[in-house]
Amino acid sequence: MLQRSAFAHPFEWIEEEAARRARAGLVRTLRPRAADSPLLDLASNDYLGLTRHPEVTAAAADAARRWGAGATGSRLVSGTTELHTQLERELAEFTGFESALVLSSGYAANLAVLTALTAGGSLIVSDAGNHASIVDGCRLSRAETAVTPHADPAAVRKSLDGHRGRALVVSDSVFSVDGDAAPLRELASVAREFGAALIVDDAHGLGVLGPGGRGALHAAGLAGAPDAVATVTLSKSLGSQGGAVLGPAHVIDHLVNAARTFIFDTGLAPAAAGAALASLRLLRREPALADRVRDVSATLHRRLTDAHLAAVRPDAAVVSVRAPSAEAALRWAADCRTEGLAVGCFRPPSVPDGISRLRLTARADLTDAQIEGAVDAIVRTAPPC
Amino acid sequence: MLQRSAFAHPFEWIEEEAARRARAGLVRTLRPRAADSPLLDLASNDYLGLTRHPEVTAAAADAARRWGAGATGSRLVSGTTELHTQLERELAEFTGFESALVLSSGYAANLAVLTALTAGGSLIVSDAGNHASIVDGCRLSRAETAVTPHADPAAVRKSLDGHRGRALVVSDSVFSVDGDAAPLRELASVAREFGAALIVDDAHGLGVLGPGGRGALHAAGLAGAPDAVATVTLSKSLGSQGGAVLGPAHVIDHLVNAARTFIFDTGLAPAAAGAALASLRLLRREPALADRVRDVSATLHRRLTDAHLAAVRPDAAVVSVRAPSAEAALRWAADCRTEGLAVGCFRPPSVPDGISRLRLTARADLTDAQIEGAVDAIVRTAPPC
Ligand SMILES: Cc1ncc(COP(=O)(O)O)c(C=O)c1O
Ligand SMILES: Cc1ncc(COP(=O)(O)O)c(C=O)c1O
Repeated sequence: MLQRSAFAHPFEWIEEEAARRARAGLVRTLRPRAADSPLLDLASNDYLGLTRHPEVTAAAADAARRWGAGATGSRLVSGTTELHTQLERELAEFTGFESALVLSSGYAANLAVLTALTAGGSLIVSDAGNHASIVDGCRLSRAETAVTPHADPAAVRKSLDGHRGRALVVSDSVFSVDGDAAPLRELASVAREFGAALIVDDAHGLGVLGPGGRGALHAAGLAGAPDAVATVTLSKSLGSQGGAVLGPAHVIDHLVNAARTFIFDTGLAPAAAGAALASLRLLRREPALADRVRDVSATLHRRLTDAHLAAVRPDAAVVSVRAPSAEAALRWAADCRTEGLAVGCFRPPSVPDGISRLRLTARADLTDAQIEGAVDAIVRTAPPC
Repeated sequence: MLQRSAFAHPFEWIEEEAARRARAGLVRTLRPRAADSPLLDLASNDYLGLTRHPEVTAAAADAARRWGAGATGSRLVSGTTELHTQLERELAEFTGFESALVLSSGYAANLAVLTALTAGGSLIVSDAGNHASIVDGCRLSRAETAVTPHADPAAVRKSLDGHRGRALVVSDSVFSVDGDAAPLRELASVAREFGAALIVDDAHGLGVLGPGGRGALHAAGLAGAPDAVATVTLSKSLGSQGGAVLGPAHVIDHLVNAARTFIFDTGLAPAAAGAALASLRLLRREPALADRVRDVSATLHRRLTDAHLAAVRPDAAVVSVRAPSAEAALRWAADCRTEGLAVGCFRPPSVPDGISRLRLTARADLTDAQIEGAVDAIVRTAPPC
């Protein structure tokens, strides 16, 4: 069917890139898991262990039956159900913000905020360790972006100083690779000094940080501030799918009118909205879940450090352990798997600093015996440093 | 809490923009619908009427119970279940492509393809009527973008001519605003002449066009072509949520390794994957659904045209009817609602050409009596032209 052409096949370069990746040992493949996988999960972001909680899965099932399997259209046309607005009300109330807006993913929420709250001439000051969706949001916006060294309010100050026009300071609350927290109070104070808004991606803070898991902004006294906006995902502590923006009502109204990843995207499926709402209510009823997940990550860190592994002190649920090389990290993760343990393995290009590591995630529903067994397996299979 | 500052409040400009929007009559607000809304739906993209089909909602409920309410992580870490790979196999097989990759939305699928299949020096030739997610994909890529007049293969030819390096031609198969189809065969032939790949967003074609709803590429003899890639959404004909890329296996493998909106996004919720799979199987079993939706849209168009309304001849399920102004369109839609009918209302800035219209969508499960009643209500409430 191909016509005669003086040109190469359009995807020839893909073979070359694939060969290069294979030579570098960086090929990624999907590993489907079974519903009854016997592995102990220390790889997922199901921090509170709610994704399979019977109340949460029942809420997903009920929502699908009651509202249908899909939202059927853009939130602005047919895709807003009363379930969506109920979830928005309760999310805002729980986290201490005036309003909330639910989108189809946390990725879409970051793209929405960074594009709709900036214009040509705006400045975005973005931490070098920020999540890919923030990086993409900066690129998609018409703003100029200044990338500052990781967790460095003085550098943020320097970037803001002298800028005329709108400015945003954006940071993850908890960085997904190393699990360390951003200096939110200092960032807020620097932003205020220059009349800049503070945007915080609390994907890894909601459900884990703050009183009863109300999030990193609540913990820092920033929830509901007139100049702060948070983005969250419904896919980690809340065990579902979707994302949300939390902020002042006029900011949320603006996003409804201007954010392309909200306007031109199908609304979140009712089952996902229902599950997230059930998790939120469960968390409100059992605030100790947030304490437990922090205890688990602290224990994991202490035990691994005692065994002389290079674990980063966790500020939330993620415990990162450095490996000497990408191949060593890959082998380590495979050996853990042989021992019955699923762990994350982060390698270039998914790590901004080029350092490969195992990424372990604490869960509130891990027993002490499971934690001990997991640590033993990780230590037993550790590569020589 | 705000510190003293020489600067304005960071969101002051939002009030000004809101006032400007209000003056122009272009404020958008969310209108939550009830589960038992009595309105006849001609606004959603539930083309085959499957989103509330008992088999589809039962599959969503079963998947949530069996696999959990969320995928729990990136598809590359913990977020690929056997359900995801089963859906990918059956999507590829049904549409006639070698491989498929499921993402959390059709929006994310377009961003994935346009960023991961281009590099600095690439050229993307993009139709002026393409969906917002394609426009954003072009902006997010490092490629140069040439926007060509709507449905104009000669202009595409001119843009490709003289470009050295990788090139992609990208088009919606069915344009979401006017419901007209792209000249896919001509675009494919022009792309091949220059060794460019053809990327088609078949969001509105899957389930509606081609034999048994196999899509616009199948209808054009392009399914499975080595130089063609399709993106689809699971949120329209399949009544669920999510998106997918269909193409040669090495292209799909490349996306797994390189597409940021795949790698750094949580996998699609099992309930959404399960529902989409159930819809796909239902469609395979009842291929006449695709014929029926085309019959319904043709009937809608014929009856509206007979009544001297400016309806665009539909190539798929979307029937667009022009309105004299944004205010008239808004009033018309509100009057339809009073008559018991939910219709879409597209106004600036959501319409590339600035023309406001009602957007009606055909559904396979509409009865002839419902169609007649809907047409009567639309005609009765039409503004004078
Ligand atoms: C910090 C951070 N922000 C945003 C996201 C994206 O959220 P989602 O997976 O809901 O798109 C993630 C992870 O997926 C994340 O780790
Ligand atoms: C042509 C087209 N492409 C892509 C999308 C985005 O798909 P999704 O809603 O699944 O993100 C839509 C509509 O939502 C669309 O109409």
